[in-house]
Amino acid sequence: MAFKTDIEIARAATKLPIQEIGAKLGISSDDLLPYGHDKAKVSQSFINSVQGNKNGKLVLVTAINPTPAGEGKTTTTVGLGDGLNRIGRKAAVCIREASLGPNFGMKGGAAGGGNAQVVPMEEMNLHFTGDFHAITSAHNLLSAMIDNHIYWGNELEIDTRRVVWRRVLDMNDRALRTITASLGGVANGFPREAGFDITVASEVMAILCLANNLEDLQKRLGDMIVAYRRDRTPIYARDIKADGAMTVLLKDAMQPNLVQTLENNPAFVHGGPFANIAHGCNSVIATTTALKLADFVVTEAGFGADLGAEKFLNIKCRKAGLAPSCVVVVATVRAMKMNGGVAKADLGAENVDAVKKGCPNLGRHIENVKSFGVPVVVAINHFVTDTDAEVQAVKDFVSEHGSEAILSRHWELGSEGSAELATRVAEIADADMANFAPIYPDDMSLFDKIDTIAKRIYRADEVLMDQKLRNQLKDWEAQGYGNLPVCMAKTQYSFTTDPERRGAPTGFSVPVREVRLSAGAGFVIAICGEIMTMPGLPRVPSAEAIKLNADGDVEGLF
Amino acid sequence: MAFKTDIEIARAATKLPIQEIGAKLGISSDDLLPYGHDKAKVSQSFINSVQGNKNGKLVLVTAINPTPAGEGKTTTTVGLGDGLNRIGRKAAVCIREASLGPNFGMKGGAAGGGNAQVVPMEEMNLHFTGDFHAITSAHNLLSAMIDNHIYWGNELEIDTRRVVWRRVLDMNDRALRTITASLGGVANGFPREAGFDITVASEVMAILCLANNLEDLQKRLGDMIVAYRRDRTPIYARDIKADGAMTVLLKDAMQPNLVQTLENNPAFVHGGPFANIAHGCNSVIATTTALKLADFVVTEAGFGADLGAEKFLNIKCRKAGLAPSCVVVVATVRAMKMNGGVAKADLGAENVDAVKKGCPNLGRHIENVKSFGVPVVVAINHFVTDTDAEVQAVKDFVSEHGSEAILSRHWELGSEGSAELATRVAEIADADMANFAPIYPDDMSLFDKIDTIAKRIYRADEVLMDQKLRNQLKDWEAQGYGNLPVCMAKTQYSFTTDPERRGAPTGFSVPVREVRLSAGAGFVIAICGEIMTMPGLPRVPSAEAIKLNADGDVEGLF
Repeated sequence: MAFKTDIEIARAATKLPIQEIGAKLGISSDDLLPYGHDKAKVSQSFINSVQGNKNGKLVLVTAINPTPAGEGKTTTTVGLGDGLNRIGRKAAVCIREASLGPNFGMKGGAAGGGNAQVVPMEEMNLHFTGDFHAITSAHNLLSAMIDNHIYWGNELEIDTRRVVWRRVLDMNDRALRTITASLGGVANGFPREAGFDITVASEVMAILCLANNLEDLQKRLGDMIVAYRRDRTPIYARDIKADGAMTVLLKDAMQPNLVQTLENNPAFVHGGPFANIAHGCNSVIATTTALKLADFVVTEAGFGADLGAEKFLNIKCRKAGLAPSCVVVVATVRAMKMNGGVAKADLGAENVDAVKKGCPNLGRHIENVKSFGVPVVVAINHFVTDTDAEVQAVKDFVSEHGSEAILSRHWELGSEGSAELATRVAEIADADMANFAPIYPDDMSLFDKIDTIAKRIYRADEVLMDQKLRNQLKDWEAQGYGNLPVCMAKTQYSFTTDPERRGAPTGFSVPVREVRLSAGAGFVIAICGEIMTMPGLPRVPSAEAIKLNADGDVEGLF
Repeated sequence: MAFKTDIEIARAATKLPIQEIGAKLGISSDDLLPYGHDKAKVSQSFINSVQGNKNGKLVLVTAINPTPAGEGKTTTTVGLGDGLNRIGRKAAVCIREASLGPNFGMKGGAAGGGNAQVVPMEEMNLHFTGDFHAITSAHNLLSAMIDNHIYWGNELEIDTRRVVWRRVLDMNDRALRTITASLGGVANGFPREAGFDITVASEVMAILCLANNLEDLQKRLGDMIVAYRRDRTPIYARDIKADGAMTVLLKDAMQPNLVQTLENNPAFVHGGPFANIAHGCNSVIATTTALKLADFVVTEAGFGADLGAEKFLNIKCRKAGLAPSCVVVVATVRAMKMNGGVAKADLGAENVDAVKKGCPNLGRHIENVKSFGVPVVVAINHFVTDTDAEVQAVKDFVSEHGSEAILSRHWELGSEGSAELATRVAEIADADMANFAPIYPDDMSLFDKIDTIAKRIYRADEVLMDQKLRNQLKDWEAQGYGNLPVCMAKTQYSFTTDPERRGAPTGFSVPVREVRLSAGAGFVIAICGEIMTMPGLPRVPSAEAIKLNADGDVEGLF
């Protein structure tokens, strides 16, 4: 049996005009700002007008630790959304936007896969509605204003060695990681070391995704620390007087983007912060707006549940006052096998023992998510090579661990394949079984928050941290930042900091190498490994093969 | 009498839905790609479908050398377009897009002024439809691919000292003019000197504005020279295999943007190349599309007629096969006075003698434009302080020089004030009086082309150029670039290279300090003075005062 590729399916989709998608959520044409015929932003005035509406139920889709086998978290998010609509529940999907730059290194990604996708796929992998360009502009305006302030006399007494605000581009460009700027003589300023990150790593991105509204956005932008004086006192974006102009540059980007699934159900695609140095979820404004308009909102978080769900629950939900009614943990038979020690090349053969051996990874994620007080359903995202015995092995394991696993075939069949999952998720949500709470309180010390996550989520024996870093955390607590949540930056491939340790390892430590303060986004980052904030291009970038074909279609992007 | 500001007038405008504006030109809703409710792109498929249409008449609006008094060239372009529509002729306006970055240094510009404006003004000064962001992305993708090529082994043997392709940002950021890139160790590449220009200075911008279609765009992108080997042989963007992906990034940006005037007439706002190191006109595709849809297309060129009209006629018209039916030279009484030696502070008082003394600047522009074989009308753009005697002095001078001047009051009255000008322009265009030809042939040597412009347009005695530069021109001729037109980069304030020499000076030389080849755009640049390709911000950037007010309107941008 030959399957169509994701892009073939996406191009063959019968899209409805975006106004008809908006109408399903009660958004009139006037309240949609169209970008072409299949994309639109939801106007701020409309968002303001629905604040009195009752909230729908929130469902989070998360996953086991990612493996090269692929788990299909976004595919399941989309499939579950379509499934809920199929069974007569008004549902909207909320996912992240894609970054443009990396698509020119490796091939671009679909939003979902098979018959569970969001379209238009090409636009979502290119400029889309310009949100990331707006973030790039706002970020770099602040950068230019900082150097301009220094140039014209440096009244704020910025220590040019301690400018922590870098520049950004939405491009994989390793040559810009570390630069010397302001060279070329008096007219160009004071030479200093500088550098660029990729746009999704910008604190502006994290803020856009956490801000409740434009006023909150501007306040958070102003709160960002951009540099320090010689006496180590911080200088804020507000001191540079950049926060107002940055907000103006971001006012359109703050409005959530509406597109559609292959089954013409509404999908909000908005924001895309890194899942390591940031929290890795779509925007709060998209999620909260969707909750005002739909009975069910299905969203996802980056990476596996140890990073993505933990941050979604401890950072996004805490800060935005959200509480999921149900959490779906996506697993695949193939990924269970890889966690059980099978190489990618051998995944085609039935291997029930390996599935069983890999299941403890899933088991730990289930336990972890439950510890937030939310009910868990495991979605086994069906691959055509899965055997009944393998699927049953996963189901049995999950049952033994007090939860339930449902096979879902949305990739192959769309909502027809996800109706059973949707039905069970809706039952659980309707039963109001959740009693959500973050796993640490605001007033716990910053070190103890890190320690709590490492021990309760990763199951580490201890956190290793130099006294210098511990002192830094104490300094921030003294400055009033002690109530912030922590944002863990760790490999997504393992509960440990070693990407090779799959399964459910025990007997390890979590070394924290660096801590950073994102005072505007509102979290303290604990870095437990190499963090790449500006990727490079591979030897043969995918860009070399990307072109328009004779029909005007994009070739080589997927 | 209190006049409203441009932004007050623009905000009070009653805009029609962009679909209604498109309908005036026969563009259906399906063929318009909306960006919000008041902006749209005209689809490439629609453009393809109208290629068999008969062309309308093209009218160029140009001006005397700019002075701090302001001439109102765009205002007159918009006013004339509205005037033509008022007298029953189907007319469209074609102007350039604004660059975002500079608006955060000095206050942003209106598109026109008073009652002759194009709206929406705010969007046009911010992200608009994302064209400049797309150009930034395409440009920087090529930059990243060049350094990536060097990083992975440098198979093309690029001399890292001779990479001529820089990076761009749409931001005034002097700190990026000269940088050292690829610092930080082995993983970041080979350190080399690099730098950023502002996006409008990108050769990609010039190409987007000169390309006839997407195929031509890709060919020109491939033709760009990005670096040289040690043996001085050139390396093209095509060698880097970036041309296809750049075209994909630019495919939406190539579609012209449709907006409207205050009087709800169609206006194409598309492209915005520098008027010094590039040709300074809106896009060929917008102009040629408008000509297929309207009976009259009114467009403008950057700076005064010595630079703007010369390049419009010698570069854009030559390359795109365009020929204007009439050229309008905009003059103001105030600018005539400044050319006559009056300081800006003294412009309020009547001074007929100064007007007369300044008129020779206008006279020379009239002669110059006529030398291209096109009829000229002078539009006196009325200011409220102009006296009848002053206006009459300009009219008399123009009559004596065998042309005619018409007072136009579109700023104050909209199309009611420009109907007389429109009527006369339409008469001239209908009479088919033009016999347009560029003032130098393709096969003239590059030096002689520069010499021809300097002597026939500027009225210089001679061109001063080092032997080294003359040899460079000969090298390019030997390489097959001898048939290109030349693009002069000179001060816009004077016929000479000295910005202080107003009026109609004689007895001067034109020193050419540098020559550059834009092999993709298709011209050789002769630089006759300081060219700033990355502006800086002033001591108090306008960004400091830009913000959203309580109503959600942008404050401080204008």
